[in-house]
Amino acid sequence: MKKTVAIAGATGAVGQQMLECLKERNMDVDVKLLASARSKGKVIDGYVVEELTPESFQGVDYVLGACENDVTKMWMPWAMEAGCVVVDNSSAYRLDDNVPLVVPEINADDIAKNNGIIANPNCSTIIALVACDALKKEFGIRRMVVTTMQAVSGAGVKGIADLENQIKDENAPKTAFPYQIAYNLIPQIGDFDELGISKEEWKMQNEGRKIWHDDDLLVNCTCVRVPVLRSHSESILLECDKEVDVEKAKDVLSNALGVQLKDDPQNKVYPMPLDTTNQDDVFVGRIRKDLTDPTGKTLSLFCCGDQIRKGAATNAVQILEKLLAQTEQ
Amino acid sequence: MKKTVAIAGATGAVGQQMLECLKERNMDVDVKLLASARSKGKVIDGYVVEELTPESFQGVDYVLGACENDVTKMWMPWAMEAGCVVVDNSSAYRLDDNVPLVVPEINADDIAKNNGIIANPNCSTIIALVACDALKKEFGIRRMVVTTMQAVSGAGVKGIADLENQIKDENAPKTAFPYQIAYNLIPQIGDFDELGISKEEWKMQNEGRKIWHDDDLLVNCTCVRVPVLRSHSESILLECDKEVDVEKAKDVLSNALGVQLKDDPQNKVYPMPLDTTNQDDVFVGRIRKDLTDPTGKTLSLFCCGDQIRKGAATNAVQILEKLLAQTEQ
Repeated sequence: MKKTVAIAGATGAVGQQMLECLKERNMDVDVKLLASARSKGKVIDGYVVEELTPESFQGVDYVLGACENDVTKMWMPWAMEAGCVVVDNSSAYRLDDNVPLVVPEINADDIAKNNGIIANPNCSTIIALVACDALKKEFGIRRMVVTTMQAVSGAGVKGIADLENQIKDENAPKTAFPYQIAYNLIPQIGDFDELGISKEEWKMQNEGRKIWHDDDLLVNCTCVRVPVLRSHSESILLECDKEVDVEKAKDVLSNALGVQLKDDPQNKVYPMPLDTTNQDDVFVGRIRKDLTDPTGKTLSLFCCGDQIRKGAATNAVQILEKLLAQTEQ
Repeated sequence: MKKTVAIAGATGAVGQQMLECLKERNMDVDVKLLASARSKGKVIDGYVVEELTPESFQGVDYVLGACENDVTKMWMPWAMEAGCVVVDNSSAYRLDDNVPLVVPEINADDIAKNNGIIANPNCSTIIALVACDALKKEFGIRRMVVTTMQAVSGAGVKGIADLENQIKDENAPKTAFPYQIAYNLIPQIGDFDELGISKEEWKMQNEGRKIWHDDDLLVNCTCVRVPVLRSHSESILLECDKEVDVEKAKDVLSNALGVQLKDDPQNKVYPMPLDTTNQDDVFVGRIRKDLTDPTGKTLSLFCCGDQIRKGAATNAVQILEKLLAQTEQ
């Protein structure tokens, strides 16, 4: 019997991409689109959007969650009550001990430990971890120093609108960001704590430890919003347990799941966010030994990934595929 | 008697800014604008541009050089022959042992050691070193991990034209960069060596050692071109000799020459390139202790500076002011 998959938050950038991913992958499921009352009756790709209510989850097997934390927390009990299994893209449950946090290329086995909720990690975290996982297996990663350069669509459709409107008129309203983002950079994503570290900057260490099952992982992160429409970029320094080797690094990355090696700088081959836009793979390049570490254990690289696809929707749909495969067995 | 100052390369972005800086600072000098034959007769701010020839330097006391390396190397012997003192913004002579490399806030004393040429450092290097100099004096800096996010005007007027034209039409020609820069990031500035490190990425360590008189300085740098018109931004990790203290760091920075402390993230106060555009000061903020260094000796910060002003023209004109003051004594 066909399973029913509901997308909660179907009208947002991630929700719409989830629907596209389901279709691209020819997944044999019935789809139900849920959103707020405001979007009720809207038609997306032939599906009529329904208002998300306590009754929405009756007869639904799986939910792909693409809502903000507060909205997610509202409907999650309804989905649990109805016996759904939820793959949730919000950050509300990511660090909950009862909720696996999964990047299928890295820790697909954790999916089986779920109690009804599986969390999708933060977009920058997914992109960085997919880029670095094969290197972690090869060299051991103990510390990462990361500067993220995050696209405006990380703030949803409002973020895209802000950039496009401000490009045309610098006095256009600021709806997604506190300052003009056109022709500018904003070194703030999320609120800051008393140490001056933003919520977004904490995520890579907190979520990385859980995904990699490595409580000793250290991540220093600086998150910067950039005037790019789609795809996040990250400049990453990796301090490893073993001495690193650039050729070996390229070798393991060229065989890594979800990764495309783009590393031939002499011929101007390196990752760029325009090239990963609308791609599921993470591009990795600019791989070089850090000559400022005399022990030779540090590697530098640059990576890009579409944060709406692999950083959110694709990752969630990959988890759903694993769940569906399990029920078929 | 009034001194005569020639600007070589007067029609470029840096050359034009040099003229503006001379005027803003009400410097009591005669000005002569020199450029290629193509620009001969062009009028800038009431000055008629002359063709740069072997005879151009007769009667000139000081030259502000704003040409590419090859052009600079062509005219430098002519300027030396004529007895000029040259403040040169090209990279041609920066690492020459006979040429002081100067950021006036840091090593103004080196100016006196000149033999006719004083070099202006690389723009990203000036901005980073101005941002970090007071911290180096306080805590000692032994290693820097830097990701630069460099504005298109670092590639001159062509870079600005590329961004502006590509914003209007994504098929607009690429004259300054190998790929579209509008809505994109390009992790290449300058050619790469066999280690995969670009020329621009080597500059901060090589030039930093000379300016700070510290041959042990280590800098790992990743340079990224961003779709910002003007002002470079840099995400910097500083590994220090002593344990760092955020309040002390803010304190010394608030008294540092050429620096404006912009560090109140809770109130959304941090450096942004749009805010430093057309400013001479370097803005520094996002200062926080790196919790991933268990020794407590590492500091993270974010800084921005107008690379055409402090990163080039203003720095050169400040050196010229010091030279003029010396002759008056």
